[in-house]
Amino acid sequence: MKYSIRSARAQDCRDIERMIMELALYEKMPDQVKISHKGHTVVGYVLYYYTYSTWSGRCIYMEDLYVMPQFRGEGIGKALMASVAKVCREQQCVRLQFSVLDWNKPSLEFYLSKGAQDLTDKEGWHLLRFDGEALESLAEEAP
Amino acid sequence: MKYSIRSARAQDCRDIERMIMELALYEKMPDQVKISHKGHTVVGYVLYYYTYSTWSGRCIYMEDLYVMPQFRGEGIGKALMASVAKVCREQQCVRLQFSVLDWNKPSLEFYLSKGAQDLTDKEGWHLLRFDGEALESLAEEAP
Repeated sequence: MKYSIRSARAQDCRDIERMIMELALYEKMPDQVKISHKGHTVVGYVLYYYTYSTWSGRCIYMEDLYVMPQFRGEGIGKALMASVAKVCREQQCVRLQFSVLDWNKPSLEFYLSKGAQDLTDKEGWHLLRFDGEALESLAEEAP
Repeated sequence: MKYSIRSARAQDCRDIERMIMELALYEKMPDQVKISHKGHTVVGYVLYYYTYSTWSGRCIYMEDLYVMPQFRGEGIGKALMASVAKVCREQQCVRLQFSVLDWNKPSLEFYLSKGAQDLTDKEGWHLLRFDGEALESLAEEAP
């Protein structure tokens, strides 16, 4: 199957919105996102941004990686992820980080097979979050 | 004890560097950072940056939070963290996220007592990383 990887354009927004919702359904948290468009030609997307480690310098965090179920197994996910790794190299970023749900074994095994390290298993890192009222009351305590 | 919270300035770099190393020692990964300065008047720091969630919009990630051992228990860590929560509110960020090592019980209990959610325990999120040769070979696979 033929496919191409390119940067997103404004006119892709409808497709990207649809896939954001599909990803939320796949991750079993559809209540966390509200989108309702349909129709496709774009079949996957990756969203990343730059972060910073005091220990290692500039890094990239891959927030979302998604390929529609009917287009999986064709190497599209790998190509999207590899494109981000290439951006890392071009921008002198030494780490490409991301988060995966522990029950999502196919994705986890795919990432590990490509050489990713599971820092939660290996070093014990847990992801924490303040939001809603907890974030509000914390902000109230600012000096 | 009196203390003040303010934005970092260029002349704080020496102190910040020293504390970056102290944090690495505390987290038992001193080999991951190379710094050798000494001397202090600045006794803690917090480092954060903006991230983006397709589900929730703009967020803040707190990369480092550190207070020197001899100045702990005075509310400085809480004040630093609350200052970041205040930035969240001012910038319409709906989440303040960060990572904690699972063996670091004092920190973990402190965060949970302030209302933070442990997303690794609650939803199963694991943090993954590509670096070094794994990152290089992934970049080679880019189309």
